[in-house]
Amino acid sequence: MGCVTLMICQTCRKIGGESAEDDAPDAPRPGARLLAQIAAHDLPEGVQLRAVDCLSACSRGCTIALSGGPERWSYVYGDLDPDLHGTAILEGVARYAASADGLVPWRERPEIFRKHSIARLPPQS
Amino acid sequence: MGCVTLMICQTCRKIGGESAEDDAPDAPRPGARLLAQIAAHDLPEGVQLRAVDCLSACSRGCTIALSGGPERWSYVYGDLDPDLHGTAILEGVARYAASADGLVPWRERPEIFRKHSIARLPPQS
Repeated sequence: MGCVTLMICQTCRKIGGESAEDDAPDAPRPGARLLAQIAAHDLPEGVQLRAVDCLSACSRGCTIALSGGPERWSYVYGDLDPDLHGTAILEGVARYAASADGLVPWRERPEIFRKHSIARLPPQS
Repeated sequence: MGCVTLMICQTCRKIGGESAEDDAPDAPRPGARLLAQIAAHDLPEGVQLRAVDCLSACSRGCTIALSGGPERWSYVYGDLDPDLHGTAILEGVARYAASADGLVPWRERPEIFRKHSIARLPPQS
């Protein structure tokens, strides 16, 4: 199974799908906070973290995406909150990385992965 | 540049983001109509057409996705109407296929690609 990448959008200004409280132009973006929070944990085996530019789902920030080589489905999730969702994201990423095709059984997905899905893309192979 | 795939969701029940008029359980899904309409045209060079299962953007049907190997960004578009958008989709796909990285200048994208974007994913390479 190929390496899994957890991508965190650094462009989003929203948190949980709502305008951030502190939306001063020079305030750290919510995605930067989420990235720092995730990076402070041990990542699941075979998972790399990547800061990315806009995932074009701006109304649904914070947004993240998961991909894992040509054999796995890719996923985009949104309406995330860096203060609430870091642990659940790591749990969902670990399950995704443990699958061959990225398809984690519904009940094994953390609630935010069940309820905050924006889209998914089939494997490219 | 790798081969480009235009994926059309065969699961969506909505058209233009709204419930389809004829939503009898056995009615052809909107994505089947869109697929048939696109398939009736000559596809741009290097583009293949693929019917896919649910892209997990059900409230935004019809939905399509574009991918093009590990060097290109992938895109998901929604709120499409098989009766209105076939030609514009083909135009947008041709421009995407002509790009090395999938990033078509904003003004060269058809209006539906500018206004109906659901999400995009960075290249995997």
